[in-house]
Amino acid sequence: MSASSSPNPKFTQLLDRLTEINDIKAAISLLYWDQATYMPPGGAQARGRQMATLRRLAHEKFTDPVLGQLLEDLRTEAANLPYPSLEASLIRVTRRDYDRAVRVPSTLMAQISQHQSAAYNAWAKAREAESFAIVQPYLQTTLELSQEYADCFPGYEHIADPLIDQQDEGMTVGTVRSLFEPLRQQLVPMVEAITACTPLNDSYLYQNFSPKEQLKFSLGVIHCLGYDLKRGRQDKTLHPFMTKFSIDDVRITTRVYEHHLEQALFSTIHEAGHALYEQGINSELEGTPLAGGASSGLHESQARLWENMIGRSRGFWEWFYPRLQGVFMRQLGQVTTQQFYQAINKVTPSLIRTDADEVTYNLHIMIRFDLELAMLEGKLAISDLPEAWNERYRKDLGVIPTTDVEGVLQDVHWYIGLIGGMFQSYTLGNLIAAQIYDTVVHFDPEIPFEIERGSVKRLLEWLQQNIYQHGRKFTTQELIEQVTGSSLTIDPFLHYIRHKYEYLYQCKL
Amino acid sequence: MSASSSPNPKFTQLLDRLTEINDIKAAISLLYWDQATYMPPGGAQARGRQMATLRRLAHEKFTDPVLGQLLEDLRTEAANLPYPSLEASLIRVTRRDYDRAVRVPSTLMAQISQHQSAAYNAWAKAREAESFAIVQPYLQTTLELSQEYADCFPGYEHIADPLIDQQDEGMTVGTVRSLFEPLRQQLVPMVEAITACTPLNDSYLYQNFSPKEQLKFSLGVIHCLGYDLKRGRQDKTLHPFMTKFSIDDVRITTRVYEHHLEQALFSTIHEAGHALYEQGINSELEGTPLAGGASSGLHESQARLWENMIGRSRGFWEWFYPRLQGVFMRQLGQVTTQQFYQAINKVTPSLIRTDADEVTYNLHIMIRFDLELAMLEGKLAISDLPEAWNERYRKDLGVIPTTDVEGVLQDVHWYIGLIGGMFQSYTLGNLIAAQIYDTVVHFDPEIPFEIERGSVKRLLEWLQQNIYQHGRKFTTQELIEQVTGSSLTIDPFLHYIRHKYEYLYQCKL
Repeated sequence: MSASSSPNPKFTQLLDRLTEINDIKAAISLLYWDQATYMPPGGAQARGRQMATLRRLAHEKFTDPVLGQLLEDLRTEAANLPYPSLEASLIRVTRRDYDRAVRVPSTLMAQISQHQSAAYNAWAKAREAESFAIVQPYLQTTLELSQEYADCFPGYEHIADPLIDQQDEGMTVGTVRSLFEPLRQQLVPMVEAITACTPLNDSYLYQNFSPKEQLKFSLGVIHCLGYDLKRGRQDKTLHPFMTKFSIDDVRITTRVYEHHLEQALFSTIHEAGHALYEQGINSELEGTPLAGGASSGLHESQARLWENMIGRSRGFWEWFYPRLQGVFMRQLGQVTTQQFYQAINKVTPSLIRTDADEVTYNLHIMIRFDLELAMLEGKLAISDLPEAWNERYRKDLGVIPTTDVEGVLQDVHWYIGLIGGMFQSYTLGNLIAAQIYDTVVHFDPEIPFEIERGSVKRLLEWLQQNIYQHGRKFTTQELIEQVTGSSLTIDPFLHYIRHKYEYLYQCKL
Repeated sequence: MSASSSPNPKFTQLLDRLTEINDIKAAISLLYWDQATYMPPGGAQARGRQMATLRRLAHEKFTDPVLGQLLEDLRTEAANLPYPSLEASLIRVTRRDYDRAVRVPSTLMAQISQHQSAAYNAWAKAREAESFAIVQPYLQTTLELSQEYADCFPGYEHIADPLIDQQDEGMTVGTVRSLFEPLRQQLVPMVEAITACTPLNDSYLYQNFSPKEQLKFSLGVIHCLGYDLKRGRQDKTLHPFMTKFSIDDVRITTRVYEHHLEQALFSTIHEAGHALYEQGINSELEGTPLAGGASSGLHESQARLWENMIGRSRGFWEWFYPRLQGVFMRQLGQVTTQQFYQAINKVTPSLIRTDADEVTYNLHIMIRFDLELAMLEGKLAISDLPEAWNERYRKDLGVIPTTDVEGVLQDVHWYIGLIGGMFQSYTLGNLIAAQIYDTVVHFDPEIPFEIERGSVKRLLEWLQQNIYQHGRKFTTQELIEQVTGSSLTIDPFLHYIRHKYEYLYQCKL
């Protein structure tokens, strides 16, 4: 490795500082994981303070001018090293992170961190009381803080651009819109066409399934997919997530519903998709800022690829379904593979994003994306948000929330984050997943047949080799072009959806 | 509260700095708790690094000269405030901690931290291989680091004094010896006398007890003792411990053996005793260095008081035993309360400290204490340690280890800490527990009768009022004198043991 052959002491200093910050961040992640899994209720208040303290510390350490000077001093060195080398990548990526971080004053960061705790608590109360009014003033502050945050990055074309860039580096409102608009134009009539067809029967999924057995089977599935349980574990939580404390400790959480088979199963595969990405990062990146996913969108693409393109495919269940039947003989013994495949792919315009199928899902995202932009632009007042939300659902999906819990209060994102940049990654993820899988199958047409025989070995190796191992060395755009040979387009996704659902619904889309 | 009436900005600055350090330490505790409960094996390496990073950070922050200057500036102020006030106590206790911390160079701290990880791993391997030789070089380094650490505090009378003071402030080899020597002189013949009696029958405890039911019952017991599960929780681990992340998040861990009823039950009560102390600290001390136990010895005294003086008393089981029988009818239905009481108090000179009864336990401790001193004094070479260990066991307890796992490798202490100061707290705890409980019962003679009726309310309130709420405001010596009216003596403990075991063994001790 070139790091050892040219041990520039400044590089070592940089690395030491970054490892320290990485370790503080790992502790923050653990404080969060524990809060969401095992923490007794009494711990909440001090936990909020502890996380805020460590966040401030990490931000202080990272925006230390000495670190900026080290990056400056290493500029020439980095330019002379091969682009994908550890050193050049580390310096390049850290510089981008640093330039972004130093623009935001510590006071604003602290304000945001404090406000988010309050907003989250208000959101929980508002959901219980089914009352948007409870969060309205908090959301107003969130909006103002989001605008203030964006204004730390002058020169943007759209005020949401810096917020989007934070999650999906290199993307802007312009580039996202150029993908989302044509996508919506195609999806809305597709959903209408499917809705006009005979609905698929998914009643088999709503029987009584032992939660313990569900969790056990799900864990068995992701073990088969390559999730390494010696370097990870699964715990129960309210809102499933993946988190990591090091490349060798990547954890997922899930929830399980006794009367709905899909929840635990697919949220487990989804989070395992995120985890496979993190577990697949080259161990030489451990402890550095390069040990992570390239962007929220690319991360989401791997969750979606495993959950939907693999986990909801006919071939996948060819092998796994008899095993699932073995666990739930009484409930599924007489349900065929094809019937099960149809059930888990039923399309229904619905109110809740997290329950949405592959076809309608992106419409949920675009509603949120557009509303975020309107709020940031000052064209939509917070007080008018519930109304605007419901109207868009009526228009795009033909359904109307009866309470705000089914509407604007359903997602936690605006209450634990900022307004802007919070949702586009989901749809970008779907698009990226389709484009990558298209390439994979083109490159190795044996892969789908291997999956039918119960093995994803070749697929996982391909993804590790071409994407996972690199961590953050390359940007999402670079990776997509390297891997697929073109920039991101909506075509593979639309082709995938059309092909799959024409077959499922036996109709022309 | 006086803090708000006289908001000296320097005091606020001090408090802010201390809260930050407290929060870093809470994160370290969580990193440790997770490592001992849920962490997948792959996480070990990075976890070691993360804990070392945060420890270094906490030490750096605490030894910052700015903090020292604040303490200096607040010296006069503290002197003019009432001794037990929050401000005066905080300044006083922090100054003692600070003066101690700044004496130890960061480089030595880092060296110790790194070495401890290596030594711990070597210990685990040595136990597996049943070979002391594997840890011998590590223990040699530990000894040298311990001596180096002690030498940061010149002017000591005995080289172990600074190490003892670290755990049990105010105690020295001299004061400990003045308690331990007469204690040993009385205990050795007592053990001999008991060994000559007809042994008690404890075979009832070695049946098949469902681990799940054991854990459930144990948790029920400590709930009745006042352990607040909204502000705590219990998890399984290899070596039980108590840890806290805030006053409102105090956790315990336990282990359970299917064929030995005592383990889970009494280790749970023991750790709950530690936890009751921490949960009982006044909430205004949260986040400050005052929110903790006064010393290791006092902390241990509360674990021992609840585990032994209450948990192994006849009165306690008067109420709890029928409930335990209800859970294990098949195993205990025909065993009387008195038979059970005898079983859980059987005295047997044995090889393993953690399995020892109340009478022999302190002999195990004194062996370790004396060996620590001999090593530090240079009178006992590490290579001769196993031999010396075995010889002392033969002499004091009449038993000889057949392997080092039963001998010198049994305790983790020297492999995760230093040599010196690691063991005296256990016996001090037993002595303090007896002296305090003696006072409590003298003060409120109704308490034992309340316990027979299944309530510890008055006992817990008394302890909270007189000890727990103060946290570290007073030293252990101050508390013992305030509470019992005299300094620590061995008499109450000897009286307790003699009285209890004369009755149990029906012989003169």
